Amino acid sequence: MQFHIPYELYKDRHPTKSAALYHALRDSMVKGTLPVRTRLPSTRALAEMYGLSRGTVNQVYEMLASEGYLSCETGRGTFTAYDAGLSVAAERDEPQFRLSAWAARLEEAGKPAAAPERPHQAAAASAAPDVRRHDSGNRPGGREAAGDKPASSESTSRKDFAPLHNGEPRLVDFRAGWPDFRSFPHEEWNRLMYAQVRKLGSAPPDELMTAQGYWPLRESIARYLRRSRGIAVQPEQIAVGGGSMQAIALLAQLLLNPGDAAVMERPGFAGIRRAVLAAGGRPIWAEVDDAGIVPAAWDARLLFVTPARQFPTGAVLSLERRLALLRWAAEREAVIVEDDYDSEFRHRGRSLEPLKTLDGDGRVIYIGSFTKTLPPAFRIGYAVLPHGLISPFAQAQALYEPYPVNPLEQRALAAFMAAGSYERHLRRMKRLYSRKFDALRRLLHGELSGLFDWVESDAGLHLFGWWKHSEQRYASFKQACAEAGVRWSETQPVAAAAGRLRIGAYFHFAALTEEEMALGVGRMRACIGR
Amino acid sequence: MQFHIPYELYKDRHPTKSAALYHALRDSMVKGTLPVRTRLPSTRALAEMYGLSRGTVNQVYEMLASEGYLSCETGRGTFTAYDAGLSVAAERDEPQFRLSAWAARLEEAGKPAAAPERPHQAAAASAAPDVRRHDSGNRPGGREAAGDKPASSESTSRKDFAPLHNGEPRLVDFRAGWPDFRSFPHEEWNRLMYAQVRKLGSAPPDELMTAQGYWPLRESIARYLRRSRGIAVQPEQIAVGGGSMQAIALLAQLLLNPGDAAVMERPGFAGIRRAVLAAGGRPIWAEVDDAGIVPAAWDARLLFVTPARQFPTGAVLSLERRLALLRWAAEREAVIVEDDYDSEFRHRGRSLEPLKTLDGDGRVIYIGSFTKTLPPAFRIGYAVLPHGLISPFAQAQALYEPYPVNPLEQRALAAFMAAGSYERHLRRMKRLYSRKFDALRRLLHGELSGLFDWVESDAGLHLFGWWKHSEQRYASFKQACAEAGVRWSETQPVAAAAGRLRIGAYFHFAALTEEEMALGVGRMRACIGR
Repeated sequence: MQFHIPYELYKDRHPTKSAALYHALRDSMVKGTLPVRTRLPSTRALAEMYGLSRGTVNQVYEMLASEGYLSCETGRGTFTAYDAGLSVAAERDEPQFRLSAWAARLEEAGKPAAAPERPHQAAAASAAPDVRRHDSGNRPGGREAAGDKPASSESTSRKDFAPLHNGEPRLVDFRAGWPDFRSFPHEEWNRLMYAQVRKLGSAPPDELMTAQGYWPLRESIARYLRRSRGIAVQPEQIAVGGGSMQAIALLAQLLLNPGDAAVMERPGFAGIRRAVLAAGGRPIWAEVDDAGIVPAAWDARLLFVTPARQFPTGAVLSLERRLALLRWAAEREAVIVEDDYDSEFRHRGRSLEPLKTLDGDGRVIYIGSFTKTLPPAFRIGYAVLPHGLISPFAQAQALYEPYPVNPLEQRALAAFMAAGSYERHLRRMKRLYSRKFDALRRLLHGELSGLFDWVESDAGLHLFGWWKHSEQRYASFKQACAEAGVRWSETQPVAAAAGRLRIGAYFHFAALTEEEMALGVGRMRACIGR
Repeated sequence: MQFHIPYELYKDRHPTKSAALYHALRDSMVKGTLPVRTRLPSTRALAEMYGLSRGTVNQVYEMLASEGYLSCETGRGTFTAYDAGLSVAAERDEPQFRLSAWAARLEEAGKPAAAPERPHQAAAASAAPDVRRHDSGNRPGGREAAGDKPASSESTSRKDFAPLHNGEPRLVDFRAGWPDFRSFPHEEWNRLMYAQVRKLGSAPPDELMTAQGYWPLRESIARYLRRSRGIAVQPEQIAVGGGSMQAIALLAQLLLNPGDAAVMERPGFAGIRRAVLAAGGRPIWAEVDDAGIVPAAWDARLLFVTPARQFPTGAVLSLERRLALLRWAAEREAVIVEDDYDSEFRHRGRSLEPLKTLDGDGRVIYIGSFTKTLPPAFRIGYAVLPHGLISPFAQAQALYEPYPVNPLEQRALAAFMAAGSYERHLRRMKRLYSRKFDALRRLLHGELSGLFDWVESDAGLHLFGWWKHSEQRYASFKQACAEAGVRWSETQPVAAAAGRLRIGAYFHFAALTEEEMALGVGRMRACIGR
């Protein structure tokens, strides 16, 4: 087989040989010139071919493998794992979006009238380069949501974190959905933040910082999405904000009139339900099974879905169903909001492209975030918008905050990404989380399979199971565990096949050590039958 | 005259003698035990009375004078300038607020349903102490708004800031509405920020940080408002966020149904118009003259007003009109949103209480911010809510951002305020801005009174004048000035008495040096008649 990648071309454009090789291989897969299941030359052969050291080639193969672009099969070799046939390089003609009355009013309100602006930053704002002309304000969403579930009986106090006299933690809390910040590169990040603190304290407003976010960060996110997620996107399509909720709430307001239907998963993210209800939307509940959302002929023009990893079950949506959703959207002239909350962390198998990469029509809005990778205090998320929604979304963001409230974090993250540190950190965390994932999976499957039907998943930062027994027994088991010092997250009871109600439980592992997980599951097992 | 203040009592409660004296005097005025126009003892006499040094008494008198609580009259002595009769210590029974359909939907959406939360921070959030039970989420507004006025012909580029070959700045930009950050205590602030960066990078979510803001900051703001603005307020009534726009937009959504009327000033802040229109409200334009908004029997239940300093004219609303607004609100069962965007900086005369202090009914929502005192990148603002609106506002904030996006700034500001540094900084800036205010006033009145009718004002960070001539002549003057390197802010043409249209121009001075102002006004004068 004749093997070729345009390495020489890439060498001129990248600072190091390994970067050039990495991108040459990646882009060849994404563009389809290296089809899926192509066997790669051995590291020795490729090193000779392009005058590289074997170490460099090895390192690049490992990076690509950790991202799911290559699969290494013992005794058989290394194969490409990316199917370019499923991705669409650029969007074709985009649909017109039917906007809500709220969006129309907002548009109308943006026109000049006999009311002056209070131009705190007028000079800087009006100086935004042309490419961001559409962008007159915003801040969209990341990947978090928070327990606003009434849970006074489940509250945690400081005392819960004090160790017992034998040194064990009093509470093992599987509800802790934040990342493992102990493994964060604090020194590098703090240096970047300090520099921004110094800089922003004595600088006039920055023309690169508009309501939709810091322009260099939007560029970095676009590059990251192109490279790592296969989404062909321009920086002006990226709207940066705090958590994911802002994007979800603003999209509901922009796309729903009171009475309009919106489809959402059950079980699903409560924040989506709140956003739809607040906008006056009428929820249509979509069924979820072990392959994710079950497509149907919903009479609606808006769908919120978590294809990469259904929330909270963790099920991965099959390609067949993804295509069915896109066909539904095309037929109904609907919009799909793809909520991708933690799929960076794939522990097994090949990288699954976001639904957005299959979206030839430009009907999919992709929502991503950094809240599963940065420490929890630094909240940055983003939405990837079709061109027709850039301006309405920008107006919506600017209505609430004309300038970003987290400029330090946005600028530090831009520098962190530009230095390659973000992807390095991701790779390190992938390895760490894979170990934790395996550990918790072994524990839960081994010890608690009598109580829960575990939903198989190979990504993300939590594991999910359906309770096998009665609601009453669940309540008393949960109570016993809480007294023993273990808590976890749960769904409200969900209707199941035979008219029964089912309760789902999910266990976050990112913030816990393997010892804490073992302790927690041990305590749970001790409560069985009590 | 028998002079008495409860100094001994205060001595036990304050760390320094000067703090005790300051608060004893202040509180006596606020409570009315020291009536307005009381002549104070000389510094020597007061020092002897309480065993203090004259230096201490001098310093306290100066502080109180700089805040408008005392007035020093040459040759006559020092008098109290605070009229306690105008303020109301505590709110009486509060009215029920009629909320919008949006607010009702949001409330409904907050109830549990068959959709689980994604509990990123569930453990921490549910652990909030009881006192903040109402507070389930938010981030309101500060004092900024930004030029989203279409102004491509007025854009500023980096080149504008490059000096000319003679060393003069190419552009003198009176549109620059940000504070003079050159005089900010950078070292102290940066130290506080660095400490927060280190702390938050390796900490789980903080139970004191809810969507309505960092609890200690809310306490500090409440203390500041009680002490410096005479507003009796509890920390749970304070909702902290980014700029003022968020509070304005959320209040419009919470209080207006589509078609409902809302009163706003003309000229006024364009952000308010946007918020009302987006919520579907119907604007009723209130007339503004040299004494501020002109009260009328508006058929509406919501009013946005800038009593401390009308935006943009700078007119101070008379006491008579303030009382008329409150009577109107009581009769109509209406809500008044008091937008207090820069009244910290009073250059002359006595301190004017916010309208909120006269609000016995609890019908006034006060919006304040730190955007005129902190460097422009650090955006923190707040709303002071009547008890009946705390929970709806919290739900509205949490809908868009379940957790604050600016935790570093909120925590640093809390420490800055607790150390007394914020009020020290304010006092320094008051002196600095008073000089700049006098300088610009002299320049404008002296050089440009043939062109503009200047509106007298004794506070704030900009000066305002009505153009005296035709629209055509304004356009050509403005064009000539732009070419000569001067720009300023302006209102859209506003209807005036005789059916004529008037244009208002306003000149921000905080960010400019006295030399720059002189240069800019000189350039303007050179353009007259061209």
